Amino acid sequence: MKKVKDFTWKSGISVKELVDQYSSIGFQSVELKNASDVIVKMKKNNAKVYLTFTSNMVTSGLRGFFAQIIKLKIANVIVTTVGGIEEDIMKAKGEEFKIGSFDTDDTELHEKGINRVGNLQINNESYMHFEDNILPILNKLYEKKKRWAVSEMLREIGLMLEDENSILYQAAKNNVPIFCPAITDGSFGFHLFLFQQKHSDFIVDVVKDFGNILFTSSQDESQGVIALGGSISKHHAILATLLNGGASYAVYMTTAQKTSGSMSGATTNEAKSWGKVKDSSDVSTVIGDVTIMFPLAMISAMEELKEDGLLDL
Amino acid sequence: MKKVKDFTWKSGISVKELVDQYSSIGFQSVELKNASDVIVKMKKNNAKVYLTFTSNMVTSGLRGFFAQIIKLKIANVIVTTVGGIEEDIMKAKGEEFKIGSFDTDDTELHEKGINRVGNLQINNESYMHFEDNILPILNKLYEKKKRWAVSEMLREIGLMLEDENSILYQAAKNNVPIFCPAITDGSFGFHLFLFQQKHSDFIVDVVKDFGNILFTSSQDESQGVIALGGSISKHHAILATLLNGGASYAVYMTTAQKTSGSMSGATTNEAKSWGKVKDSSDVSTVIGDVTIMFPLAMISAMEELKEDGLLDL
Amino acid sequence: MKKVKDFTWKSGISVKELVDQYSSIGFQSVELKNASDVIVKMKKNNAKVYLTFTSNMVTSGLRGFFAQIIKLKIANVIVTTVGGIEEDIMKAKGEEFKIGSFDTDDTELHEKGINRVGNLQINNESYMHFEDNILPILNKLYEKKKRWAVSEMLREIGLMLEDENSILYQAAKNNVPIFCPAITDGSFGFHLFLFQQKHSDFIVDVVKDFGNILFTSSQDESQGVIALGGSISKHHAILATLLNGGASYAVYMTTAQKTSGSMSGATTNEAKSWGKVKDSSDVSTVIGDVTIMFPLAMISAMEELKEDGLLDL
Amino acid sequence: MKKVKDFTWKSGISVKELVDQYSSIGFQSVELKNASDVIVKMKKNNAKVYLTFTSNMVTSGLRGFFAQIIKLKIANVIVTTVGGIEEDIMKAKGEEFKIGSFDTDDTELHEKGINRVGNLQINNESYMHFEDNILPILNKLYEKKKRWAVSEMLREIGLMLEDENSILYQAAKNNVPIFCPAITDGSFGFHLFLFQQKHSDFIVDVVKDFGNILFTSSQDESQGVIALGGSISKHHAILATLLNGGASYAVYMTTAQKTSGSMSGATTNEAKSWGKVKDSSDVSTVIGDVTIMFPLAMISAMEELKEDGLLDL
Repeated sequence: MKKVKDFTWKSGISVKELVDQYSSIGFQSVELKNASDVIVKMKKNNAKVYLTFTSNMVTSGLRGFFAQIIKLKIANVIVTTVGGIEEDIMKAKGEEFKIGSFDTDDTELHEKGINRVGNLQINNESYMHFEDNILPILNKLYEKKKRWAVSEMLREIGLMLEDENSILYQAAKNNVPIFCPAITDGSFGFHLFLFQQKHSDFIVDVVKDFGNILFTSSQDESQGVIALGGSISKHHAILATLLNGGASYAVYMTTAQKTSGSMSGATTNEAKSWGKVKDSSDVSTVIGDVTIMFPLAMISAMEELKEDGLLDL
Repeated sequence: MKKVKDFTWKSGISVKELVDQYSSIGFQSVELKNASDVIVKMKKNNAKVYLTFTSNMVTSGLRGFFAQIIKLKIANVIVTTVGGIEEDIMKAKGEEFKIGSFDTDDTELHEKGINRVGNLQINNESYMHFEDNILPILNKLYEKKKRWAVSEMLREIGLMLEDENSILYQAAKNNVPIFCPAITDGSFGFHLFLFQQKHSDFIVDVVKDFGNILFTSSQDESQGVIALGGSISKHHAILATLLNGGASYAVYMTTAQKTSGSMSGATTNEAKSWGKVKDSSDVSTVIGDVTIMFPLAMISAMEELKEDGLLDL
Repeated sequence: MKKVKDFTWKSGISVKELVDQYSSIGFQSVELKNASDVIVKMKKNNAKVYLTFTSNMVTSGLRGFFAQIIKLKIANVIVTTVGGIEEDIMKAKGEEFKIGSFDTDDTELHEKGINRVGNLQINNESYMHFEDNILPILNKLYEKKKRWAVSEMLREIGLMLEDENSILYQAAKNNVPIFCPAITDGSFGFHLFLFQQKHSDFIVDVVKDFGNILFTSSQDESQGVIALGGSISKHHAILATLLNGGASYAVYMTTAQKTSGSMSGATTNEAKSWGKVKDSSDVSTVIGDVTIMFPLAMISAMEELKEDGLLDL
Repeated sequence: MKKVKDFTWKSGISVKELVDQYSSIGFQSVELKNASDVIVKMKKNNAKVYLTFTSNMVTSGLRGFFAQIIKLKIANVIVTTVGGIEEDIMKAKGEEFKIGSFDTDDTELHEKGINRVGNLQINNESYMHFEDNILPILNKLYEKKKRWAVSEMLREIGLMLEDENSILYQAAKNNVPIFCPAITDGSFGFHLFLFQQKHSDFIVDVVKDFGNILFTSSQDESQGVIALGGSISKHHAILATLLNGGASYAVYMTTAQKTSGSMSGATTNEAKSWGKVKDSSDVSTVIGDVTIMFPLAMISAMEELKEDGLLDL
């Protein structure tokens, strides 16, 4: 059994070295190091890796990190919410978000045309520019065909973006499908609706896309899930792996606790009862803010994978 | 300014009397009483009321309460996640869920064919019976037409159920639309997919349904949102009211905190920056478990509305 | 195994009836009903009941409820923090606290001489009046003797107050000792220090008081703990019961989660590993805001105890 | 106004580099970088630094880090709970704690004589050995004098330990006082009680120690507080700085939220209303697990202080 070890700082300590020491500190630091280890195992054992995140993480600077993880072929399937799609496109088109404060006068912000996401801020103009950008995109899609599965549509859009830090761009370039089961739940949905008003034969086929996510893997293949935050992005990936026999590896990172029975707070253990993860799987649930924890766990895993020559640099 | 008052018990105290006293106790009890007051105001001012909840609340015994609230015409529009749809149908068809524990051996549960949702349990058989029930339903829908908006589909299904405690049944009977923006994210989605495999012209039109939720209200009408838990059910209702000029009343009840910038934890204040709720709106954010808090706030509001002859009993 | 039951409202529903129904709703509502049952069992089995709470609960209107619980001989031993002592005395002397908001301009409040506790407010004057009141009290104590155990001191002070809603008054009158292991951690501590500067032989003997709390019970007696919130008030009661063989009944109500390894979030299960509660004990941990949950669970228990003729009304 | 920047990994990235990038990611990562900056400012401006932590952090491997921080003269005053004192002594005497799991069979652990603190474990033997060690220590203290302020007692004990990683040892060696306002709330308290049973003139003078913490600073000096977790350790430091005119710098790290009005969740803003921190102070409240976050923020600060020649290496 592992012992608690006194941690001490050495000047110049790397992220990898710190995360290694987390394993003998205690509480969530132990779980974080465990999460990092599970990620390494996923890749070493050639599991199909499902990475899920919510839109607020794309609002944040994690967006470029997600793009990098796709580029390095660490994630093989992405599931996110539509806000994440919108904001990735906005940023690819040059929009800039600002860092503000959790405690602000929101009425004042509203008057200034600033929308708040926690301590981050998005200007109304960014949404207007998004509107300008999305219409020609929908026109191009419609010219190609009338009926689109969501992931196919997102792949086409990704190919139109030219931004190394774009999730959609890297995903399209690296043949990583992006799933978004509630594609209408945002500004994008509103523009789809307006477009369909003029083109009633334009169809977004969510049912077909369920087949697409199912066929991203198979019962013969092992699967790993990295679920950041809760929401349907988490649930959708787990559902897909459940229908393929259950994930062999799972890492959940969230601030939601299990005590209210919510999906967002459901643990990797609860997942075992459903067969969402296999009984014998390697799992880790870490409680805390993803913007702090995910870079730590993932960087540590990446350094290790690189050492072992398993990263496609 | 209101003063803190010492609370004391009187034998036989009613829920209404307790919630009234919450207003002078402090911390979340004050917010809960405020939430109750905002609900009363919504109804007194004839606002269009959007009630949103997540599937775990339908797993719980709140399901019958939601049906009652619809029946009493307190809620005018429902937004939920697909798990809530599935479980409402299961229960309408006689399936029973059990009360267990948050701390269980999930591998053992899995072997017994029991799926855990917090401290509640659903048997695998319930999902199998759901499969048996859903196929004839899909066949009937397909006979009627090939292209369905989600809320239209759910209305048809509701009409087929015969259960006073069913959300879908009461909604259909009382012309209350149910929206579910991620309809494929569950067992229901899997069956839609299988059905479409045989009937490729069968289309679930989520884009059209976005128009449907938009037209549930208008800029001329005032709107109220009661969002229980987070997730897309919360976001979708707020998005709809945003596009109609912003809600005049909003009650959020959740265990999620605002500190991670998630949608689930976003407060009614943050909503003001977006125009999701009007700057001048009556709002309340209550932190805690919905299974405890929602009955309290809603019962108190119902008793008051009844006294004022505003309940359709 | 208990089944989930659909909850529906009946007009005029009492708190007792609602809490009874909580047992078949799910998630924390189930735990809350369980907590109520454990409290009933404590009393039916003549356990020595330790009630602990933190100072913010005395800031709130729960203060009168605690006094009533002591008066009704439901609680036999009290453990709290010094802020709770101070504010009980302030209120007994006529000070009034106000209900404000969690989101305020704290710099502005500071300029106005208002101290904030969550959404409650205490004026600087209340602290000044406390100073005026505490000096003559300390003089009287010093005249009696020079060396005081904390609980003895608090008993003397209680006897000087004339307020039915006062915790100290009811405790003194009903021979319920109040323990406060960190008596100097507040304004009271500062006044003790000033007093000792003039009277160096004035001693507050915390070590002796540890003996006093140990002797509130014995290995022959069964013990029950109701711990509201975390902090040393919770820990101190549990430590006392541990040294007397472990509690047979324990109810923890808190917003703190177990995931950081803190005392405040430690569960009744964790307590079993220490022998703080017996392996065979009846325990319940409920997550949520005490100002909402404690009245519910306790009222329900009180109604049941009253029915059974077990309340000293 | 700062912009959100896409984060990307570079192999070999140091902790300092990552924390620097946190400033443009979002949500709690921004707050964490801010906390690091506030710590740097405290030291650059020669503030008296109060470091507070709870006992579970001493159970964890942070213990050695706290000792190092004292040795490097970053912290000038320590406030903790008695469990932290006990476990520091145990570890100094060679006891070893183990890393287990949050989900265990606590009845089984109890039978094995293992006490659980979150996912950490302490053997009963460690407590027995503590008993063996503490008795001769108390005898030595008693020979020196009969009446002890807590911090004086802890200094004497620290001088008897020989462990570079011991908090008490480093504090004693570097003239850093350790305050513990509830010294009896633990195993140590029990042994003090047993000792006093035999030596009734043995007095632990907590009132005197309140004067000692007051005189650790003055109105002329600026003060900084780093409060890890909540509890009385946090409150006691803030109370001391309040009585000296309010802290100029404050960093709070905790998992407790402000929504229940608890001390543990009280923010640096709430502190402003009390004058606990000055209106113009530099403050930061970070939400999350201290075992992950504190090393990050503190290492980043230490690297910067070292660069500027401000660390006493």
